[in-house]
Amino acid sequence: MTVHIGVIGTGMIGQDHIRRITDVVTGAEVVAVTDVDAERAKEAADRVGTRALPTGQDIIADPLVDAVVVTSWGPTHAEYVLASIEAGKYVFCEKPLATTAEDGLRILEAEQAFGKRLVQVGFMRRYDAGYRSMKRVIDSGEIGAPLLLHCVHRNATVPETYHSDMAVQDTAVHEIDIVRWLLDDEIVATQVIRPRKTSKRFEHLQDPQLMLFETASGVRIDLEVFVNCQYGYDIQCETVGETGTVRLPDPADVWVRRAARHGTTVLQDWRPRFAAAFDLEFVEWVASIRNGQLTGPSSWDGYAVSVISDATVESLHSGRVVSVQLKDRPAFYGG
Amino acid sequence: MTVHIGVIGTGMIGQDHIRRITDVVTGAEVVAVTDVDAERAKEAADRVGTRALPTGQDIIADPLVDAVVVTSWGPTHAEYVLASIEAGKYVFCEKPLATTAEDGLRILEAEQAFGKRLVQVGFMRRYDAGYRSMKRVIDSGEIGAPLLLHCVHRNATVPETYHSDMAVQDTAVHEIDIVRWLLDDEIVATQVIRPRKTSKRFEHLQDPQLMLFETASGVRIDLEVFVNCQYGYDIQCETVGETGTVRLPDPADVWVRRAARHGTTVLQDWRPRFAAAFDLEFVEWVASIRNGQLTGPSSWDGYAVSVISDATVESLHSGRVVSVQLKDRPAFYGG
Amino acid sequence: MTVHIGVIGTGMIGQDHIRRITDVVTGAEVVAVTDVDAERAKEAADRVGTRALPTGQDIIADPLVDAVVVTSWGPTHAEYVLASIEAGKYVFCEKPLATTAEDGLRILEAEQAFGKRLVQVGFMRRYDAGYRSMKRVIDSGEIGAPLLLHCVHRNATVPETYHSDMAVQDTAVHEIDIVRWLLDDEIVATQVIRPRKTSKRFEHLQDPQLMLFETASGVRIDLEVFVNCQYGYDIQCETVGETGTVRLPDPADVWVRRAARHGTTVLQDWRPRFAAAFDLEFVEWVASIRNGQLTGPSSWDGYAVSVISDATVESLHSGRVVSVQLKDRPAFYGG
Amino acid sequence: MTVHIGVIGTGMIGQDHIRRITDVVTGAEVVAVTDVDAERAKEAADRVGTRALPTGQDIIADPLVDAVVVTSWGPTHAEYVLASIEAGKYVFCEKPLATTAEDGLRILEAEQAFGKRLVQVGFMRRYDAGYRSMKRVIDSGEIGAPLLLHCVHRNATVPETYHSDMAVQDTAVHEIDIVRWLLDDEIVATQVIRPRKTSKRFEHLQDPQLMLFETASGVRIDLEVFVNCQYGYDIQCETVGETGTVRLPDPADVWVRRAARHGTTVLQDWRPRFAAAFDLEFVEWVASIRNGQLTGPSSWDGYAVSVISDATVESLHSGRVVSVQLKDRPAFYGG
Repeated sequence: MTVHIGVIGTGMIGQDHIRRITDVVTGAEVVAVTDVDAERAKEAADRVGTRALPTGQDIIADPLVDAVVVTSWGPTHAEYVLASIEAGKYVFCEKPLATTAEDGLRILEAEQAFGKRLVQVGFMRRYDAGYRSMKRVIDSGEIGAPLLLHCVHRNATVPETYHSDMAVQDTAVHEIDIVRWLLDDEIVATQVIRPRKTSKRFEHLQDPQLMLFETASGVRIDLEVFVNCQYGYDIQCETVGETGTVRLPDPADVWVRRAARHGTTVLQDWRPRFAAAFDLEFVEWVASIRNGQLTGPSSWDGYAVSVISDATVESLHSGRVVSVQLKDRPAFYGG
Repeated sequence: MTVHIGVIGTGMIGQDHIRRITDVVTGAEVVAVTDVDAERAKEAADRVGTRALPTGQDIIADPLVDAVVVTSWGPTHAEYVLASIEAGKYVFCEKPLATTAEDGLRILEAEQAFGKRLVQVGFMRRYDAGYRSMKRVIDSGEIGAPLLLHCVHRNATVPETYHSDMAVQDTAVHEIDIVRWLLDDEIVATQVIRPRKTSKRFEHLQDPQLMLFETASGVRIDLEVFVNCQYGYDIQCETVGETGTVRLPDPADVWVRRAARHGTTVLQDWRPRFAAAFDLEFVEWVASIRNGQLTGPSSWDGYAVSVISDATVESLHSGRVVSVQLKDRPAFYGG
Repeated sequence: MTVHIGVIGTGMIGQDHIRRITDVVTGAEVVAVTDVDAERAKEAADRVGTRALPTGQDIIADPLVDAVVVTSWGPTHAEYVLASIEAGKYVFCEKPLATTAEDGLRILEAEQAFGKRLVQVGFMRRYDAGYRSMKRVIDSGEIGAPLLLHCVHRNATVPETYHSDMAVQDTAVHEIDIVRWLLDDEIVATQVIRPRKTSKRFEHLQDPQLMLFETASGVRIDLEVFVNCQYGYDIQCETVGETGTVRLPDPADVWVRRAARHGTTVLQDWRPRFAAAFDLEFVEWVASIRNGQLTGPSSWDGYAVSVISDATVESLHSGRVVSVQLKDRPAFYGG
Repeated sequence: MTVHIGVIGTGMIGQDHIRRITDVVTGAEVVAVTDVDAERAKEAADRVGTRALPTGQDIIADPLVDAVVVTSWGPTHAEYVLASIEAGKYVFCEKPLATTAEDGLRILEAEQAFGKRLVQVGFMRRYDAGYRSMKRVIDSGEIGAPLLLHCVHRNATVPETYHSDMAVQDTAVHEIDIVRWLLDDEIVATQVIRPRKTSKRFEHLQDPQLMLFETASGVRIDLEVFVNCQYGYDIQCETVGETGTVRLPDPADVWVRRAARHGTTVLQDWRPRFAAAFDLEFVEWVASIRNGQLTGPSSWDGYAVSVISDATVESLHSGRVVSVQLKDRPAFYGG
């Protein structure tokens, strides 16, 4: 059984997913695409020999489409996800699931009303080999109960359009999801601290930022977000447990000894760092659709991360610790 | 254009390639399989919904088959490769290409007579990210001209059927190919030294073995083959150049601090170590067929490695340095 | 010229310094010792063939004594340091220099009145090869201006007498000094966050603790103090600058591959970790006395660290950010 | 009890030992020095406030001298060692102990005739923390019986006066001693292989060289000697046992991430690499003299290493495997 997929949004990430579904994932096929820029949609469709449709609603309504991928502009996500649920179709939605808590809740209600999980949110780090190995170590109990996490998220540079809130909404959001998943615990409070700013940035931007999270069970997470670190793309994570610690490896590359130095490369871009995770995300998504049971990050995860992210942005502006106000987790979502 | 593939040999490696072509490689499809064990062929065919044919010759002759994969018993390889060439079909042959130098030469002649490369040999290490990165460093000139390579090939254990010659034919053969490729140089002399044997082996086996190779330009390679090292599967390689060195990384896994130790895992098996290389080998093979021009290891490589391997086995028995007697490399193969 | 040293306090650390001065430092000699436990002083004196005197004041007054080492109970430090200054003798004082800010200020005034530096405080990390190399990298400008430091201070276990304030006063105090020295910057605000407690501790103890410091120039430091981490003694420090980062190495020991693991040891104790630093601290102290000009941590450092430490303890109790109220740094101390 | 030392030879290494005995070792004092260059001896004596005597024999005969350090020109070593034994004085002799096997045997006989060990040879690697840790791991049995060692000895560059035999006599000699000590086993055969030469050398020099050693129990050692590797001083050693391996760590320095690279320094010189070992060598030598029982490398070690070294030079010239012809080890030396 081939899964026939319609893609809403053919920007950079949408094009990448179309290529992935076509070239990497077996058992899936892109059967229709759309974009607000009809010309861009046409080009994307032509590249893989498929059709461009006028609107996202056309994609969702299309009888050939089994499952929808939403990679359009963030504020449009909730509408497409709700329409997909209404149509009873699986939908993979890139973050954010919704840009308001209200929209997030509407999705949760619609999906529960439908009675079966249809929505998966694009938190691809859960498919990274390093994080998965870390979770196995934590779950095995060999380092005892987790107490602290130290995280680092650095990019070489960001463009001028990147503003301070995006350090939360676009960057830290990956760690917000992954620590919830690693710990199987919820974030209940959040705070942003503003260190001295790097001079290597556009004037308006608070960079770096030091974020602190607290979970329901009292685990504390510190996260450095530094998006103009100059030297490369660098993701670090260490979980400290009662009897030991576990830490992500650096990406493996050859070691060179030369000119009085012994060293290896640092990646310059997030793509090679998480390429295998993106691939596996879609491979497992398609496999789970074929099995009739989604296994990836749910709309509850999308909702919770959005609310935590909003609270973190609030703290960035106020400088104060902000409590996260989540609805009770429904039993439908493992609550 | 989908590449339709017929597979001769449905043992462990054959089954793995069938799975790979079916689940991992896009743009290719297994359309027929065969095996000396007809029952096993039937089961393998059923698993992916394809046909089992009676013989390898039936596979090669089948009009639906565009390209042949040969993973049968070694001594049958040459016959199937020659038949594929005669049929004008692409053929991917697992090592060894041939079990005698004469058969290897017949393949070279047949392929040249056909006038275009049809044969690729399964030296998958050329698709490993680490070796590729090492080759980029060597070719960039940043470590100067290579002078020495230090290689290690360790397996946790081998079964009783593994005998001393197999340390060359099945194990060292991977390093024999990869150093030729890394250096773009030919091996001209070979020697095996017999260290004290580990007690953790079957009585008949010389394990470990220390092999020494010399290339045409005078580069020296030492290779430890140790197939009962107990602790895991471990592949190491360091190239020493005039101004620096480059070394393969260990496979990346999380780092754990616990119980007074700081460490990571060692793989227990070659499959996870080279899984990505096997995948890429087939992805690139299929892509090169679609482009009409093979890019992987050629029948010349298969022939040369067989001759070097034979010379190395001779040295294992005689204890002496053995010269490698290769025919001149034809221009057809880049000579 | 041999420096003749009198030691006040022959507990564990005092005995270790006596051994160090006797066996490791050339050009220095212990000529008298004392302790509140006269028997213990006698034994310590006998071990190195020197005299035990009744009191610390006797040590300071002794005409044979050129320089005083104070390793007695913390609350007695200020008195002995002041008496040494009054006697015009060099004095090496283990932390804390004083247990009240008032006493610290009295020492600063006395030393300035004397007109020359006589006091050195025992912050031995400044003599560790790793921190010194880190400072060279920072000072070279190759990682740009520092913005953040991530520090970790873990002990395997602590005894029941260790209470929560000691995580600041005895443990974090080393990082408080070293970050001031690394950055050549002053800490102006401090905060302690209380994570979930490990179950592997005595009930009264908040362990781990997450401490946050801010410097005058806006650099932010996070410090994990975890004194019952079970697996060993582990000191980590990473400085994040505008264009790069620099990180302490782990202590070097052999790497073992065995039983499916690749790893090295973790030290179980602070002594081997900083043994070379303790030695160098005394070697350089004695050399600086012979040169007539102290170069190590000053009484200003001792005073500042005490005030920062007090503020941090206040935050541990209040949970709030606490501003550090230091006097202006006198020009005498490089202010 | 202070050990009074006379030093024969005030070249670079002699001066360094004088400094070490004076500044680093407690309980020892240089009381007389000499050199073929009387002016140089005078300067060396003045630097530490001691006497310069006319000849080595004067040093040995001097009643103030308890123990002799021989760091003169190699061919003079045997004479001074024999004279020291005749005088019943401890003597520390830098390598080589003797430049002919006959002289080595005369020393062994003289020392046995005296009836007590007086001679220690300057193989300082036995005092290196890494090799000591490796020996502990081997002796613990945790990696099983050793089967192979892989060694690397690289220098950044050597001067024009360095000739091919010195790669054995001055360079490999350290590995020859250390593998004997690590394995508690004797080398019985040796061979030198000549790889392609680096272009970064003086014309007369074979560089690199690949040396192979075999021990009595069949352990095989490969050793790369490469003294113009350009990038730094680099000593590597891996012991492969029946169930695991143990490998020397690289020297620890801070890790820097910068400009797309993650790396650390490579030492440029052997002095910092083995500074602590040289210090400990003298600390332990002086301590063993005070205890009346030498514990360091013996004249047997000096003799054996010389004979192995000669055999290795013979192989360098002949290209053949050369058997090592040692006398039987006397019981006096643990035979």
